[in-house]
Amino acid sequence: MPLQFDGISIIKKSNIIYGGYCINHSIKFKNGATKNLGVILPTEEPLIFETKVAERIEIISGRCWVQIGENSDVIIYYAGQSFYVPKKSQFKIISEEIIDYICHIEGH
Amino acid sequence: MPLQFDGISIIKKSNIIYGGYCINHSIKFKNGATKNLGVILPTEEPLIFETKVAERIEIISGRCWVQIGENSDVIIYYAGQSFYVPKKSQFKIISEEIIDYICHIEGH
Repeated sequence: MPLQFDGISIIKKSNIIYGGYCINHSIKFKNGATKNLGVILPTEEPLIFETKVAERIEIISGRCWVQIGENSDVIIYYAGQSFYVPKKSQFKIISEEIIDYICHIEGH
Repeated sequence: MPLQFDGISIIKKSNIIYGGYCINHSIKFKNGATKNLGVILPTEEPLIFETKVAERIEIISGRCWVQIGENSDVIIYYAGQSFYVPKKSQFKIISEEIIDYICHIEGH
């Protein structure tokens, strides 16, 4: 996994979700693709994210517990791993440490 | 003030300072310059940052109170404003909201 993205644009202002428990920056690639690069802070309750489009969440550092859509399974994801969330679905995520992640838009 | 940086590289993993009260990403420009783009979360006590090199801190969003070096003045900085910190000095910063900022390296 490359440690950096090259040749991108980044919006200076962050996106602040759940009062700062999720903070990310939108980055844009030359081919028009957009991703969000950011962090999720530790919480006592899971954060819930709804998807409009299909997304792949890549964990860059840390460890988190994830439940996707109607599936009741909770799966642990570690740095280097990804999980896929269909469009018009949701996922719940919780961690005990700060997670670095990338949200890849997978389709509309 | 442009809303974004273009043609940059960004390190995927964030820099986490003060247990997450300051989180930034290192970005690199084609000319070799490096800046840090990130956020400072609200705290009850000021965060203290020591400078090895001269830095200019640009506030992208929010409002913060800043004290630089031995100067006892506390100055409020708003979005769009910057403050300069000499090398081998320090500054104290506190805010009641999430601050977006850029740390520009001004000299060695």
